[in-house]
Amino acid sequence: MKPLLCLASLFLLSLSLPAQIRARDLGVPFDGTTGRYNAITDVKGVEVGHTTLISGEGKLKVGEGPVRTGVTAVLPRGKASTDAAFGAWFTLNGNGEMTGTTWLDDSGFLDGPIMITNTHSVGVVRDAVIAWKVKNGKPDMEGYWWSLPVVAETWDGYLNDINGFHVKPEHVFHALDTAHSGAVEEGNVGGGTGMVCNEFKGGIGSSSRVLSAKDGGYTVGVLVQCNYGDRNELRIAGVPVGREITDGAFRKKDVGSIIIVVATDAPLIPTQLKRIAKKVSLGLGRDGSYSGDGSGDIFVAFSTANAGAGKPGAPRPMTMLPNDSLDPLFLATVQATEEAIINAMVAAKTMTGVDGHTVVALPHDQLRAVLKKYNRLVR
Amino acid sequence: MKPLLCLASLFLLSLSLPAQIRARDLGVPFDGTTGRYNAITDVKGVEVGHTTLISGEGKLKVGEGPVRTGVTAVLPRGKASTDAAFGAWFTLNGNGEMTGTTWLDDSGFLDGPIMITNTHSVGVVRDAVIAWKVKNGKPDMEGYWWSLPVVAETWDGYLNDINGFHVKPEHVFHALDTAHSGAVEEGNVGGGTGMVCNEFKGGIGSSSRVLSAKDGGYTVGVLVQCNYGDRNELRIAGVPVGREITDGAFRKKDVGSIIIVVATDAPLIPTQLKRIAKKVSLGLGRDGSYSGDGSGDIFVAFSTANAGAGKPGAPRPMTMLPNDSLDPLFLATVQATEEAIINAMVAAKTMTGVDGHTVVALPHDQLRAVLKKYNRLVR
Amino acid sequence: MKPLLCLASLFLLSLSLPAQIRARDLGVPFDGTTGRYNAITDVKGVEVGHTTLISGEGKLKVGEGPVRTGVTAVLPRGKASTDAAFGAWFTLNGNGEMTGTTWLDDSGFLDGPIMITNTHSVGVVRDAVIAWKVKNGKPDMEGYWWSLPVVAETWDGYLNDINGFHVKPEHVFHALDTAHSGAVEEGNVGGGTGMVCNEFKGGIGSSSRVLSAKDGGYTVGVLVQCNYGDRNELRIAGVPVGREITDGAFRKKDVGSIIIVVATDAPLIPTQLKRIAKKVSLGLGRDGSYSGDGSGDIFVAFSTANAGAGKPGAPRPMTMLPNDSLDPLFLATVQATEEAIINAMVAAKTMTGVDGHTVVALPHDQLRAVLKKYNRLVR
Amino acid sequence: MKPLLCLASLFLLSLSLPAQIRARDLGVPFDGTTGRYNAITDVKGVEVGHTTLISGEGKLKVGEGPVRTGVTAVLPRGKASTDAAFGAWFTLNGNGEMTGTTWLDDSGFLDGPIMITNTHSVGVVRDAVIAWKVKNGKPDMEGYWWSLPVVAETWDGYLNDINGFHVKPEHVFHALDTAHSGAVEEGNVGGGTGMVCNEFKGGIGSSSRVLSAKDGGYTVGVLVQCNYGDRNELRIAGVPVGREITDGAFRKKDVGSIIIVVATDAPLIPTQLKRIAKKVSLGLGRDGSYSGDGSGDIFVAFSTANAGAGKPGAPRPMTMLPNDSLDPLFLATVQATEEAIINAMVAAKTMTGVDGHTVVALPHDQLRAVLKKYNRLVR
Repeated sequence: MKPLLCLASLFLLSLSLPAQIRARDLGVPFDGTTGRYNAITDVKGVEVGHTTLISGEGKLKVGEGPVRTGVTAVLPRGKASTDAAFGAWFTLNGNGEMTGTTWLDDSGFLDGPIMITNTHSVGVVRDAVIAWKVKNGKPDMEGYWWSLPVVAETWDGYLNDINGFHVKPEHVFHALDTAHSGAVEEGNVGGGTGMVCNEFKGGIGSSSRVLSAKDGGYTVGVLVQCNYGDRNELRIAGVPVGREITDGAFRKKDVGSIIIVVATDAPLIPTQLKRIAKKVSLGLGRDGSYSGDGSGDIFVAFSTANAGAGKPGAPRPMTMLPNDSLDPLFLATVQATEEAIINAMVAAKTMTGVDGHTVVALPHDQLRAVLKKYNRLVR
Repeated sequence: MKPLLCLASLFLLSLSLPAQIRARDLGVPFDGTTGRYNAITDVKGVEVGHTTLISGEGKLKVGEGPVRTGVTAVLPRGKASTDAAFGAWFTLNGNGEMTGTTWLDDSGFLDGPIMITNTHSVGVVRDAVIAWKVKNGKPDMEGYWWSLPVVAETWDGYLNDINGFHVKPEHVFHALDTAHSGAVEEGNVGGGTGMVCNEFKGGIGSSSRVLSAKDGGYTVGVLVQCNYGDRNELRIAGVPVGREITDGAFRKKDVGSIIIVVATDAPLIPTQLKRIAKKVSLGLGRDGSYSGDGSGDIFVAFSTANAGAGKPGAPRPMTMLPNDSLDPLFLATVQATEEAIINAMVAAKTMTGVDGHTVVALPHDQLRAVLKKYNRLVR
Repeated sequence: MKPLLCLASLFLLSLSLPAQIRARDLGVPFDGTTGRYNAITDVKGVEVGHTTLISGEGKLKVGEGPVRTGVTAVLPRGKASTDAAFGAWFTLNGNGEMTGTTWLDDSGFLDGPIMITNTHSVGVVRDAVIAWKVKNGKPDMEGYWWSLPVVAETWDGYLNDINGFHVKPEHVFHALDTAHSGAVEEGNVGGGTGMVCNEFKGGIGSSSRVLSAKDGGYTVGVLVQCNYGDRNELRIAGVPVGREITDGAFRKKDVGSIIIVVATDAPLIPTQLKRIAKKVSLGLGRDGSYSGDGSGDIFVAFSTANAGAGKPGAPRPMTMLPNDSLDPLFLATVQATEEAIINAMVAAKTMTGVDGHTVVALPHDQLRAVLKKYNRLVR
Repeated sequence: MKPLLCLASLFLLSLSLPAQIRARDLGVPFDGTTGRYNAITDVKGVEVGHTTLISGEGKLKVGEGPVRTGVTAVLPRGKASTDAAFGAWFTLNGNGEMTGTTWLDDSGFLDGPIMITNTHSVGVVRDAVIAWKVKNGKPDMEGYWWSLPVVAETWDGYLNDINGFHVKPEHVFHALDTAHSGAVEEGNVGGGTGMVCNEFKGGIGSSSRVLSAKDGGYTVGVLVQCNYGDRNELRIAGVPVGREITDGAFRKKDVGSIIIVVATDAPLIPTQLKRIAKKVSLGLGRDGSYSGDGSGDIFVAFSTANAGAGKPGAPRPMTMLPNDSLDPLFLATVQATEEAIINAMVAAKTMTGVDGHTVVALPHDQLRAVLKKYNRLVR
């Protein structure tokens, strides 16, 4: 049985398919001004690509399926660029993996894409990113390629044959090669394909904020692969939705994870991006998470400003936003995180996977009813 | 002009004064089961003492007043004990001070009280803790006293003559010597005297949670000195209270800070307490904070279990809770943090200080009305 | 061309081959008392296995060779155990990878082997460790396997066809399955096969120290995969050997890395092991390193005491060494690190690899002559 | 009894007194090219001031003496500047205090002087720095002064009446007001007055390196307050001096500390300065330290480049050295650290303090004899 390669060609999708429903479309109240796509790609240059693997059904046969997994690529400056971007990361709860972070910490640079996949495929994705660079790149000045790719994961074994290792190098190449700007497909796609969030179907979600001209007019974009949470704690716009919609809850504890990527075009240096990454926690807090022991809640932030800052040679001119201008970016990060998670659940569809396990989608009509009950429905 | 030493003798207060109003009394819905006092002192052995300094009014004359400040002491095992407690700390935003953290990190022990005061009095409080130890203690095995006290701060210069350095060693001794178990005085007391929270009067607040027997029956207690926040972002029980009650808002940005102390009797080792300290962020997130650049959001956690673990000599037997039993403690930490902050604002009274600056109390009746509007009022 | 799988069956080797020459055999003066094997395996329970891949010669043909690489496994409690060990890690310079460290930090446990390989094979080794666990293990209590393997690397592309990705899952299985106690093969073996150290041939080295009974009688063992250094800075026992033996030096800068593993049977908790990991820097400093920008100097430490501490369930009794008994362990760590690096260079043989690149071995006779010149030769 | 205020007016001293003996004068071989003064002040703009308190002798009477202590000020841009400097810090062993580090970490800036004193006087020094800023400064844009001074310490209670709290605000003002460029007085001065290093008399030491024009021509300066070490481990230029000169050794363990300040004019951002701070460990390692449990080994680094980068307002142009140009700075840091420590011991004179305790100076002639024995004496 060969996993079906779903071409997550969002450009085509955005031409031919009805637009995705987003949380705002349902009347969920969020603060702040979004960018054009309300997505991480509102930060100019950022590209996102997915490879979605869905095949088989029924009883788990390790190595055969069912397969409900994939890989998502976020390219800070697009696939054509080899220019590094200032970056930083933070762990709220460390039961997860993000490779490449030791050098991210020390160098202050993100030198390549951020990849997100399932827990047991981090390795194949990591080495495949190196292979993709070798194939597409040129030898660096030392005559060799250094390669410390950033690859993160969440665990999809409730729906996916995770021990079957179904992600292959070609799936990684596809996510990278088809990455694009514009609208980001959300829900059951890419690395988010088999994910579960607050005991609803989760996956990929995104959101963005654009600052006022007075605050610099910068954009902050967030992309999440969400797989965390205890239904009972879920809040949407402050409303205790998880206690109002209890159908389909199936767990007794928080065993999932969430990977959150923050992009901005504000000229931030790594120490400032580290602070951005920490503020992500507050957005997650607004949605009710308590970040359980089993959760790999790992956040990474980068800035697309200061092109060329990572190049060797002479000292380089750069631009840096003063620390005391950071507040609007902090608030935007919190708000876009809060919204991206809800967007993931709104977009995801009910899915049945391994051994007939079914995870239900967040029901849109019930969500609206609960928001109305608590006087928080917009329109 | 001599600052008036308000004897914050809470034991007397609890006998003679009407009980403090707490957030739950107003019908704010919080989750979880509290301890007897709904305070950090529900963790057995923990003692809290305050020295409150209030004197003068009108125009600021540096060194003379007005004085609106103080110092708060939290003693993990009470003032009679010299036994260290496992501890850890975390910074969400670092525009603040907590001394003693380097050794806390490396030793894993909190060896003495946690003190909280105003920004410009950290030094005097620190050295006074050493003097208090010298006075009360015995030479350690090396023939000298090591002293790396933990002292934290928030900035009260909007109401207090902070450059007048009004906190003196005797005020520190008083807070330590009068520390006690039982109910914790909240609001305009101790280090919290002149603090501002979400542009309402802030100060000291506390809360606790008791786990079910199945989860070990442990207690988690939280004490905050809250001085942070942008009114516009304030959420109480998920309700956008800050947008509904706008009277008395006076700032354009988040320039404050919050110090949060978490105590537990669960047998946690320092790596686990570090995780507890990180989870505090999620409680703060529930209340709407985005942790601005000007904020010193610093959290410290300790465990009163494993008495004697810090003693020198032979390898010592200890007890450790398995990591996968941490979830109820994480959730309790988030919940008690969320509530302690609201308790601080509910308890604090309107105060006028330096140059006639007035900070209004959170109006109880309006809070109830807003909760009712959003269908969140209990009873 | 199929890489030759050199069966690194050290048990057989130790029976049939002449014993390896170690630095002490050459008269290098080191302090402290070693264990029986002067190796990491002197810590009871620790097993080490290697897979060494050597094939081809001449011009580089990517994917074909020459191959000079491998993988080394260090199993804290041996391959038969699934019991986690307390652990911690530290980065002196972060231009490298060690996966699994986020959970190591947060959990305080090392839950499986430590693997070391070349930079471009970290991924395949990581996923193969999961596959090996799946194959050998039993489902955990949640019904699935969590897998966040610890895999580190150094770069061997000067001698090895690193972009040929020659390490395969079966090589990982072999290193794990043949891991053993007793003498550790050093030099051009396992992950160290193609490594370069101070512009001499480097690779795997090991050493140990046994504390006096008064200090608890604990053992500290160190294993290094050394690939770092600038010849000019090399000191051996404080003697400026790198300036005295300049033949074969070929680089202008420090572009390598070193991975250092510290094992002990002392009952240390993770905060204490973090300190042990930091002290490794001082041993590296004694040998002259300045830890260049291109270096991935990453250290991991674990304790084999407290068996069962990582198991879920009820709070567990443990033992902890008081902090003020740590000094002999710190000193032993520094000493064993200092010696293990020299042992790696003493054991490694001159090697020719990709494009005829040759890296010379540290010449034993010249080393003795230099030590004598500086009055440091033992005997 | 009033402590004598020794006016550490080094400018006068350097005119009128015989030059200090430095380690190089004795023929100790060090690598690299020093600046004019072989001191931290070779980094343009850096000023150093000392207040030295020496009075009384004989039996300890707490509060009366004997007094052997002081305070040292290092001003990154001189006392006339209010401009912050990029900075970072690192702890090798945390049994010590350095205040202000939380904001240093998060802001990336050192906003004021670095002060070094004895353990029990950190508080008074900290608050006095604020008072000095209030006195000399202007209100900042918010209408108040933020003040999170950086103050570090080592313990001088073997020679000094440390519980007498003899350092007063005026001593802090004096050290700040008399700070100057040019030669740095070393040994028994300032914060180093009563310190002990490797069981010889320790104190303040300094050194510098100037990079070649090819490497950018930058300067790296180091200042230490050294109070650490076990005689047995002391190495000077790799020679086991501590085992050869055993007279006056009096301790069984390493109970001291070392504070190390690194200055550079290279345009480094905070992530890069953090790496510089970590590399300090390697210099300390060369001198033989194992950084005992009782040691507060805390390092801080700053860059005087990028003047104005800390100012609020619009995004600011800056300059950044590429990471792959850092190696010469790393090596310079290691070398200058190695030398500054030896300079401290060479400069310090035998001192008798509390209860007649005497700590002997490193004997210059014996040092030369030992270097000669090991064929390491220069000239």
